[in-house]
Amino acid sequence: MTSPALTALDTVRLSIDCMGGDHGPSVTLPACRAFLAAHPHAELILVGRADALAEAASWPRCRVVPATEVVEMDDPVEVALRRKKDSSLRVALSQVKPGAEGLRAAADVCVSAGNTGALMAVARYLLKTVDGIDRPAIATVMPNIRDGFTTVLDLGANVDSTPEHLLQFAVMGSALVSAVEGKSDPTVGLLNIGEEAIKGSEVIKRAAQLLRAAGERGDINFHGNVEGNDIFKGTTDVVVCDGFVGNVTLKSAEGMASLIVSLIKQEFSRSLFTKALAVIAMPVLKAFKARADHRRYNGAALLGLRGLVFKSHGSADAFSFEQALNRAYDAARNRLLDRVHDQIHETLRSQPAAAASSEPPADAGDALAA
Amino acid sequence: MTSPALTALDTVRLSIDCMGGDHGPSVTLPACRAFLAAHPHAELILVGRADALAEAASWPRCRVVPATEVVEMDDPVEVALRRKKDSSLRVALSQVKPGAEGLRAAADVCVSAGNTGALMAVARYLLKTVDGIDRPAIATVMPNIRDGFTTVLDLGANVDSTPEHLLQFAVMGSALVSAVEGKSDPTVGLLNIGEEAIKGSEVIKRAAQLLRAAGERGDINFHGNVEGNDIFKGTTDVVVCDGFVGNVTLKSAEGMASLIVSLIKQEFSRSLFTKALAVIAMPVLKAFKARADHRRYNGAALLGLRGLVFKSHGSADAFSFEQALNRAYDAARNRLLDRVHDQIHETLRSQPAAAASSEPPADAGDALAA
Repeated sequence: MTSPALTALDTVRLSIDCMGGDHGPSVTLPACRAFLAAHPHAELILVGRADALAEAASWPRCRVVPATEVVEMDDPVEVALRRKKDSSLRVALSQVKPGAEGLRAAADVCVSAGNTGALMAVARYLLKTVDGIDRPAIATVMPNIRDGFTTVLDLGANVDSTPEHLLQFAVMGSALVSAVEGKSDPTVGLLNIGEEAIKGSEVIKRAAQLLRAAGERGDINFHGNVEGNDIFKGTTDVVVCDGFVGNVTLKSAEGMASLIVSLIKQEFSRSLFTKALAVIAMPVLKAFKARADHRRYNGAALLGLRGLVFKSHGSADAFSFEQALNRAYDAARNRLLDRVHDQIHETLRSQPAAAASSEPPADAGDALAA
Repeated sequence: MTSPALTALDTVRLSIDCMGGDHGPSVTLPACRAFLAAHPHAELILVGRADALAEAASWPRCRVVPATEVVEMDDPVEVALRRKKDSSLRVALSQVKPGAEGLRAAADVCVSAGNTGALMAVARYLLKTVDGIDRPAIATVMPNIRDGFTTVLDLGANVDSTPEHLLQFAVMGSALVSAVEGKSDPTVGLLNIGEEAIKGSEVIKRAAQLLRAAGERGDINFHGNVEGNDIFKGTTDVVVCDGFVGNVTLKSAEGMASLIVSLIKQEFSRSLFTKALAVIAMPVLKAFKARADHRRYNGAALLGLRGLVFKSHGSADAFSFEQALNRAYDAARNRLLDRVHDQIHETLRSQPAAAASSEPPADAGDALAA
């Protein structure tokens, strides 16, 4: 896979939906403050109710853009899309909309902890998809045994993906890993129920053919089929799947992690003796907890839009929201948007069939994970 | 849900594919011996190469049935189905085939650690499906935080399940939990990407309607949509999903579990101090390990066939294989086969649409997880 050399941006401007998430400004503002201190080349556009953001008005490299409404975590997509037109989510997103004739947008990347369905729908409506991308995807990272991360997409933006969509996810996921982790030729696996090419549904078998062909042309570095446990083994840098499968898979893995952590807690609180052991073993348990801490992996990318958007967990605390800001910053600084655009363009040029699969823009309110 | 009172079988006969799995008789025979000692009302039919099973010929309540061939773990389905007609896998399965006019079969349940694809294909060919079941399913249990088990199906026997298949899985899974765990009215969840009824693919939405209607009629106890983490929370007794999703989900969860266990090991072996801690904390770590031990959950049921079949992990050791024997014994003793038959019959009688969905018996060699 060859990609044109992209120079990093000197100054990165982030637009933050400060009202989003379960906790709003009480989490987003402290995270922004810590982020600013650590990133001297970052500038922030803080979006939300002026009264709620008053304390930030005097911060350096910060600008408050007022928005009078807030999309609640349980608001239906339609409300975010059609009724709350002055919401912080929408105003924050509008900052990354490119100006006329490709002029640089007010911000390079938007970060929100707001509800996923609303964020994706409004982003899609305001920003539109990149040429050659039928449907945007949500990509996140999961920890792996190699002490690294595996990037998984899609995570619930799309159900019933076609083989062409899965190819597009592969290209976008590769661009993301190149931009954020600096790997020049990330490997891509197709999530399946076995490694053999004959396994899986018709959609998966056809997708494997498309990905293999793209790999042979050098558009992506295709490893082949992978299974669920390969995500955590780190067999490939990128794992591609339908949004339904991705969403269920990662929620299951999180559920398993919670189960194990609670089993450990139960065993250590069984008696006075085991409680004493827990105190003695505290340094080890703390080190383990820090490494298993899912807050470190916060910050999912919405890929395939004409603007860069990152989504934080709604329940994020300040530490976790700051990780999402970090990931967004790295992506913008390394021109993720241009990389996705270039790689999609290259893939489509060499593979006209995928271009023909483009569908009309779907209703922005289609099935999305909350 | 009403089910006719089924009295437990007094004597249960198990037919064992002693050659199956990664280790063959070196694992299956010790497991059988331990199982026999613990179950005075069990009788075993041990199937395999006579020389390999010679030591068992003199065991009480045991009969050796010779089979000259062995299906290897990597044999294609076609080889098991068409070429190795005297395989231990096939001969063991044939023991649970009912006699003419419904006469009791030679064995009540068959257990094999052989390759899943071959086992399902040969079972389907020899035993056929129950009237009203289009496709057999594979059901297993996963541990949950309530210190119990969640039964999940399908696990890879079927990809591209229809809403009617998912309803059949729900009925069969309910029957399994009733029979093995003695719960009279187990709750059923439909695996989805959100709890709301509007979420998911078209197949899932339609399946939710069918399951809801079956719940309202009292055929099953339908809870509603559940998410991946609900499997490990134990939100419902049964979780129903397409085989592709089930397979990927459980392999991911296992991958996450391995990752966490290896993180714990790494943290405890970091220095002399932490290694000493590990020695002191050994009782707690051992108790944790025992509870998280996946070997305890061995034994997946192949449901929807006219004979009872249980599948052990191919990599099972003797302890683990014995757990699969235990589960098979409980299922047979509590007449799982009759329960599935009765409940499917009842569901179909009250819901003619599902009967109309029956498809011609598919090629036995269709997509199966290894």
